Amino acid sequence: MRFHTRKWVKPEDLNPNETLFGGKLLAWIDEEVALYAIIQLENTKVVTKHMSEINFMSSAKQGDIIELGIDVVKFGKTSLTLKCEVRNKMTHETILTVDTITMVNLGPDNKPKAHNKTQIEYVKDRLKN
Amino acid sequence: MRFHTRKWVKPEDLNPNETLFGGKLLAWIDEEVALYAIIQLENTKVVTKHMSEINFMSSAKQGDIIELGIDVVKFGKTSLTLKCEVRNKMTHETILTVDTITMVNLGPDNKPKAHNKTQIEYVKDRLKN
Amino acid sequence: MRFHTRKWVKPEDLNPNETLFGGKLLAWIDEEVALYAIIQLENTKVVTKHMSEINFMSSAKQGDIIELGIDVVKFGKTSLTLKCEVRNKMTHETILTVDTITMVNLGPDNKPKAHNKTQIEYVKDRLKN
Amino acid sequence: MRFHTRKWVKPEDLNPNETLFGGKLLAWIDEEVALYAIIQLENTKVVTKHMSEINFMSSAKQGDIIELGIDVVKFGKTSLTLKCEVRNKMTHETILTVDTITMVNLGPDNKPKAHNKTQIEYVKDRLKN
Amino acid sequence: MRFHTRKWVKPEDLNPNETLFGGKLLAWIDEEVALYAIIQLENTKVVTKHMSEINFMSSAKQGDIIELGIDVVKFGKTSLTLKCEVRNKMTHETILTVDTITMVNLGPDNKPKAHNKTQIEYVKDRLKN
Amino acid sequence: MRFHTRKWVKPEDLNPNETLFGGKLLAWIDEEVALYAIIQLENTKVVTKHMSEINFMSSAKQGDIIELGIDVVKFGKTSLTLKCEVRNKMTHETILTVDTITMVNLGPDNKPKAHNKTQIEYVKDRLKN
Repeated sequence: MRFHTRKWVKPEDLNPNETLFGGKLLAWIDEEVALYAIIQLENTKVVTKHMSEINFMSSAKQGDIIELGIDVVKFGKTSLTLKCEVRNKMTHETILTVDTITMVNLGPDNKPKAHNKTQIEYVKDRLKN
Repeated sequence: MRFHTRKWVKPEDLNPNETLFGGKLLAWIDEEVALYAIIQLENTKVVTKHMSEINFMSSAKQGDIIELGIDVVKFGKTSLTLKCEVRNKMTHETILTVDTITMVNLGPDNKPKAHNKTQIEYVKDRLKN
Repeated sequence: MRFHTRKWVKPEDLNPNETLFGGKLLAWIDEEVALYAIIQLENTKVVTKHMSEINFMSSAKQGDIIELGIDVVKFGKTSLTLKCEVRNKMTHETILTVDTITMVNLGPDNKPKAHNKTQIEYVKDRLKN
Repeated sequence: MRFHTRKWVKPEDLNPNETLFGGKLLAWIDEEVALYAIIQLENTKVVTKHMSEINFMSSAKQGDIIELGIDVVKFGKTSLTLKCEVRNKMTHETILTVDTITMVNLGPDNKPKAHNKTQIEYVKDRLKN
Repeated sequence: MRFHTRKWVKPEDLNPNETLFGGKLLAWIDEEVALYAIIQLENTKVVTKHMSEINFMSSAKQGDIIELGIDVVKFGKTSLTLKCEVRNKMTHETILTVDTITMVNLGPDNKPKAHNKTQIEYVKDRLKN
Repeated sequence: MRFHTRKWVKPEDLNPNETLFGGKLLAWIDEEVALYAIIQLENTKVVTKHMSEINFMSSAKQGDIIELGIDVVKFGKTSLTLKCEVRNKMTHETILTVDTITMVNLGPDNKPKAHNKTQIEYVKDRLKN
């Protein structure tokens, strides 16, 4: 699993108990899986369709740096299934995992559309061609 | 199921495809279940521990009014299990459902603590006593 | 008066004196009256035209849960006059009241337009018909 | 009346009808009167106690520049009464006026406290002394 | 140099070390130079092209009031060069300075376009004519 | 240069001309260099002291995915000098570069303090030891 995006937990990200607000974390994940899918499918019209159960394993506090990791579980015909782990950057302690997040590739008519992708691609390879 | 909190979908809530950003929706849900649990358990130290799978059934667009409904699934010893439905206020079309969201009641030491609640209570009844 | 929307006062909602920022509270009220008017008038083009005096009776602090109540004062020809109370959910202590908030129903030309409504309606009744 | 703070109306400031969200405007005003009172009273513990009626005279749209003007109506013993006008910077068209906004000076015990100010002062004069 | 816009440093503006988040400050500056340029050039299509080095001289903490000052360095043919100082409103201590910020005036084709301005103008004078 | 954090340009990130608001971009950079310095120096008390000139080379629009790259220029005694590039993830077109950003390592007394680091370290290597 590759970890890219990092967040610095600021006062605006806390719940009233002064730990990282779970809703903020979910919003960060949803953005990360959306942009990961857009990069892989080369289509900006991608929507989150389903998330499997979410385990909140530990929390984060003000000043912590966290990082979000995404990996591909499966390339479907019109979908892409991802998994996600969020962890503390400095200790690698897991904060949260989601086993499957299903993203659907949409056509201009907003209906599922085949994306013709079958494996992870890297932008730098695409740009070489 | 009782629907309380309402949101008006504003430009700041949209993803780049101009539908409601899923991450925003998840953040709204996480706030709603947290405050619902705090009201029921009469304890401000409550954390989200687990969410069952999430189905994104339809979306919302700018200007839509949505409402969040919460109901109790089960009172555990140190936990409270809720379910959630988000729907369009004007059409009652379901936007998203989560079957179980487990909230844990914490003591001053941040460890799970018995809450001694076994049924839904209403604040107005508490205030009468 | 019916209280619907609830807010959990988070660090991002505080003023530098660490009580609920009055401006945040006014923004929450303005959203709530707007969506209430949209639901009643079945028109998304509704604007706030006037608010009567606002009394800030008590404040709220981090972790408090507050709820917003709206009621109808009068159905005008092109307007709808509402009143608003914000209170602490757990103690029912009043935080703020506004006696009249006048919302105006606009037509496609952005001019006031008759809305033909004379009483409060419930969405569930509309959907039955 | 002196106009200081300026705002550039951005997409995040709009309501779903794509005009300036009234709640955002009220939040900007509340911040402006608070800091104006803090500057005059030389006390950071100042709260908004009352606002007289608010007239929304015209609106603003994306890209507009607006400015907020504050003036003193009266120095009370423990209070400071201000008035406010918001206008379009380029046309000077009035967007909103509030005739009186009463700010109360608090002591360390959070109770009203005499502030001993009787007229507008300028920071540059204070710094000269 | 004239100082207009003022900000009250709130919890949402802090970094995890509880001083003013530098990124927030840079965002406030970028908004202020943009709207200053728009006012002077009477064109809403103005972009930031270059900033000279930025010195962070002191910081600000929660509750501080800061003010942003802008002055013109030079009117170019298609550009406007500004300078900026941010200081503490109560003490006039400098927080940050930027010697030159180059704004470019764009035409409808998004290309640099002559603006025909050669000196600072005041809106009140324009409105008199 | 390694690119980690990614951002999906949403409506809330736009200026009124509907391109990425420069201030938002600067805020993202400031967060990224702060957390990069914290990771390298193993000290959470790190402040931005100086940025060299900033060239805004191209812009981004709604829906674009951008990534932020950071590299070390020099390890000083109490400082760490970084450089930064922001580019479009899909095309690798450069959006902005900053040649040097000087971060200062602070001690508990908020004064510069030697950090004893002389080269880039990876968290995974630290955790092995």
